[in-house]
Amino acid sequence: MITDWTTCRVVVTGAAGFIGSHLTDRLLAAGAQVVGYDNFSTGIREFLTPARSHPAFTQVEGDVLDGNTLAHAMQGADMVFHLAANADVRHGLDHPRKDLEQNTIATFSVLEAMRATGVKNLAFASTGSIYGEATVFPTPEDAPFPVQTSLYGASKLAAEGMIAAYCEGYGMRSWIFRFVSILGERYTHGHVLDFYNQLLANPLRLHVLGDGHQRKSYLYVHDCIDGMFCAIGRSAEKVNVFNLGTDAGCEVLDSVRWITGYLRLAPVVDYAGGERGWIGDNPLIWLDTRRIRALGWVPTLTIEQSLLRTIAWLVANRWVLAVTG
Amino acid sequence: MITDWTTCRVVVTGAAGFIGSHLTDRLLAAGAQVVGYDNFSTGIREFLTPARSHPAFTQVEGDVLDGNTLAHAMQGADMVFHLAANADVRHGLDHPRKDLEQNTIATFSVLEAMRATGVKNLAFASTGSIYGEATVFPTPEDAPFPVQTSLYGASKLAAEGMIAAYCEGYGMRSWIFRFVSILGERYTHGHVLDFYNQLLANPLRLHVLGDGHQRKSYLYVHDCIDGMFCAIGRSAEKVNVFNLGTDAGCEVLDSVRWITGYLRLAPVVDYAGGERGWIGDNPLIWLDTRRIRALGWVPTLTIEQSLLRTIAWLVANRWVLAVTG
Repeated sequence: MITDWTTCRVVVTGAAGFIGSHLTDRLLAAGAQVVGYDNFSTGIREFLTPARSHPAFTQVEGDVLDGNTLAHAMQGADMVFHLAANADVRHGLDHPRKDLEQNTIATFSVLEAMRATGVKNLAFASTGSIYGEATVFPTPEDAPFPVQTSLYGASKLAAEGMIAAYCEGYGMRSWIFRFVSILGERYTHGHVLDFYNQLLANPLRLHVLGDGHQRKSYLYVHDCIDGMFCAIGRSAEKVNVFNLGTDAGCEVLDSVRWITGYLRLAPVVDYAGGERGWIGDNPLIWLDTRRIRALGWVPTLTIEQSLLRTIAWLVANRWVLAVTG
Repeated sequence: MITDWTTCRVVVTGAAGFIGSHLTDRLLAAGAQVVGYDNFSTGIREFLTPARSHPAFTQVEGDVLDGNTLAHAMQGADMVFHLAANADVRHGLDHPRKDLEQNTIATFSVLEAMRATGVKNLAFASTGSIYGEATVFPTPEDAPFPVQTSLYGASKLAAEGMIAAYCEGYGMRSWIFRFVSILGERYTHGHVLDFYNQLLANPLRLHVLGDGHQRKSYLYVHDCIDGMFCAIGRSAEKVNVFNLGTDAGCEVLDSVRWITGYLRLAPVVDYAGGERGWIGDNPLIWLDTRRIRALGWVPTLTIEQSLLRTIAWLVANRWVLAVTG
């Protein structure tokens, strides 16, 4: 359990990513020494501009698969937040090795570097996709043994399993967070970006995967970080697993309505049809968050509010569209 | 679903192992063409002596991590039984990379070779260890989401997850078997071998890990293979998961009694003490096998009968003690 960050040295992998860069800022604000580790393959240098002006921040450019560089960055650390990952759920089938290498083997690399340097605490960004096509809704952390439907979910499951086994075997402690999709400033991938890109190219037409009724849950990035800090401060099992999401959900067509409303556009919307947006897409993601709520955490923004902040940020930061391809 | 093996070409990875060699013999007896794939790192050449005299058998010496050799062996195959693995649960913490490479990445390699060659059916040897320290007994296939306690269990979980995702994504079908410990002729690792080795060195003393009350379940190797054939013949979901074990269990000290009784020895037994034999040892493994029994399968031997066959085979085949180190 860590409640006071002022005495802590923390390594954040994926520090230049959407969530990682906010986490870095928040840790610095809380008084921690932060090593921001990123290979900048999808991480964005500009996101670390505020951090780089902070005396307690150190940037290390390296790949999590490079064990030596990673172990060097971990010297003297109290905790690692392992957020670096291939976060592209949708295109996993186009390059199956990517999830294995960047998620499964990368997590092994992080665990080995921790073992080599004696770092005992790990927070890990997992995913609600790990439940596959869940059979219980809202889906609790101890849901029935899931059947994986995506390589992304499978790679995060593999990572979670290794983390738990390392905790058991080498006396480490972990906080595993199964996120819904995260929204907010510095958003860099997902359907909001897709829709905005499409509408910039052609404000009159929007192509939507599936039938629009896929129901997902979303969480605002700062609520997500609050949830992580809350769990790390108040839960001290060997392996602490928490769903992080809002209790609400929205359909893809709600998103469409909010985004086009904000942009004051009225495009013709083409639905590709079908219950799923792509192979392995789970048409309903709705996580039971009673475990984290029991620790006192509550999200501050609704899905609609988070989504509006996201689109507002994208509109004000169009440069990110070029960077994210 | 495969009920008639006479038209099938089958690849068995780990064909020279304990279970793999019996499976190879049984598939040949059932009329299949069998490619026995093994790198002979722990596989034993003598176990394939019967198979090698069969015209429908082809031996390929190769590593499952060698994708080219593996894909070549899979040309024209209808099904793969992926049994090759690091099966050493107990010493996982001494070499954590082994489970990752030989179980997780090796399974990825098998899946990629199947994808490259268009092989659509996979049977996979998983483990009851995947349930970690289960909270429900007997433990069903859809038990609450487990927390891993061993690198071995974690690596098999990772493999199961990838297999399911490949089935969803690339139109494959899989049968995943979560075994208890298997006993019988050609037994090459585990506590029966340990005890027998100890008693050969000193018939007056036997050292036992834990307090002797760890309760495990065992299954006779031919009952195990019957179970696999039954499931593959009668269950045709995209991903078919089955526990395979006996409904009974026995304590380590029952094993001690049966083994020493068979050998007519009365050693002093030292118990190391503690509820677990080693870090990550699960003191109770007891699987719910109603799913496979509902298909008509029943084991033919009790645990005691399987164990007595095992020790009898070891006594008659002492050469294996030298080969297994």
